[in-house]
Amino acid sequence: MLVKSQVKYIQSLGQKKFRDQEGVFVAEGPKIVSELLTASNVPLVTLYAVKEWLEKNHESLVSFSSPQVVEVRDSELERLSSLATPNQVVAVFGQPSFTALPPRDSGRIRLLLDSIQDPGNLGTIVRIADWFGLRHVVCSPESADVFNAKAVQSTMGSISRVRVTYEDPEEHIGRDDLPAYATTLGGTSLYKMERIDAGIIVIGNESKGIRDSLLQKISHHITIPRIGEAESLNAAVATGIVLSHLVSSQ
Amino acid sequence: MLVKSQVKYIQSLGQKKFRDQEGVFVAEGPKIVSELLTASNVPLVTLYAVKEWLEKNHESLVSFSSPQVVEVRDSELERLSSLATPNQVVAVFGQPSFTALPPRDSGRIRLLLDSIQDPGNLGTIVRIADWFGLRHVVCSPESADVFNAKAVQSTMGSISRVRVTYEDPEEHIGRDDLPAYATTLGGTSLYKMERIDAGIIVIGNESKGIRDSLLQKISHHITIPRIGEAESLNAAVATGIVLSHLVSSQ
Repeated sequence: MLVKSQVKYIQSLGQKKFRDQEGVFVAEGPKIVSELLTASNVPLVTLYAVKEWLEKNHESLVSFSSPQVVEVRDSELERLSSLATPNQVVAVFGQPSFTALPPRDSGRIRLLLDSIQDPGNLGTIVRIADWFGLRHVVCSPESADVFNAKAVQSTMGSISRVRVTYEDPEEHIGRDDLPAYATTLGGTSLYKMERIDAGIIVIGNESKGIRDSLLQKISHHITIPRIGEAESLNAAVATGIVLSHLVSSQ
Repeated sequence: MLVKSQVKYIQSLGQKKFRDQEGVFVAEGPKIVSELLTASNVPLVTLYAVKEWLEKNHESLVSFSSPQVVEVRDSELERLSSLATPNQVVAVFGQPSFTALPPRDSGRIRLLLDSIQDPGNLGTIVRIADWFGLRHVVCSPESADVFNAKAVQSTMGSISRVRVTYEDPEEHIGRDDLPAYATTLGGTSLYKMERIDAGIIVIGNESKGIRDSLLQKISHHITIPRIGEAESLNAAVATGIVLSHLVSSQ
């Protein structure tokens, strides 16, 4: 049974202000919830699911007590869900802690996102970062929030393995003595670049690209050569292509 | 002034059945509409826009007569739009014709999509195909419709330059004598592959991958080596990475 205050609480977590105040975020759907339940650095706060899902997943839930796990009817799930088609389970998790995660080979390579606005793009970029072994994605303060429901969904669980911080991008780039890379027009062809071990790779806003003040701090300008006529590539796709060339274990 | 039958007509075009029957599709928002107006192979049928947009774009509209171009109020645009936030202009275009498009260097390379379900992914893949100079994307019949509003939006105009057809994937792959490539587990590392001039690159469904009967027809299995822990890459991102390695002018 669901009480009104629970519905109100979950709905309030649609807003970044309340998510940050509570230090939590919401994940929806069997795939991502199951993955996050296995992540030791993402504590479960409360989980609401239909009977069918609870029966199928009782093994992942043995360590949780009943007030944490609530069985709901389809109609109740609908009230909790932010999706057009609610999908069996909605869960509130504590925001991940990264202090105990082991280092990675590509850990000295970081992404710096300059105002990525679309939560889906942001989540997809975090997933790409995870694939290529990065541990840290830095976002400018105007970027989408990684704990937005759509962003969480798009990370496909990588949100538990990649730390996402919000910082002034110019300060960040100036702080460490790392080379800074960015895709811009008229740079060196990506295919002429060597693989890198450390550095900050800057990805610009979906329509405006990288702000001028940040461009001035880029040491390596890279271009993905175009054969056809599309005006640009999607920001997440460009990130994938660049990481594949610069970071991969060729 | 907008009449009720116009609203009904545009709304009916939200369904694939009516789009195909009429041979048209709907595009929304200044960026994509402006781009499609310049495409000689995409005829304008009707355009509905707010005064501000019409004044700014009167030069692109000089060759169109008044019943084709309709000024609407914000409240009227809302009734026509499929977007949460309607954006100045909604236009009905004839589905593009590709017979007169010039050939391209990468024209002998094709994408074959096996049940890409998400219209946003499909549109993004068409945009990537355009960037890398491909002229043709083949979709299995269960794939999303490229004339779906979200897909059109995600192509960012590439829908006028890349032909998208719906065909039985197994028949398609058997018809020409072209090598077939696909990303699967345990294939050759992408980074060991040579650049190709002709071939069919198969991209699988977002969660199920490539169907078994199609896998059997793949001559080259490719793997994008993973460094971190993400379970997979987004289908469009994987397409971008594969095309960047196989098709680019390195």
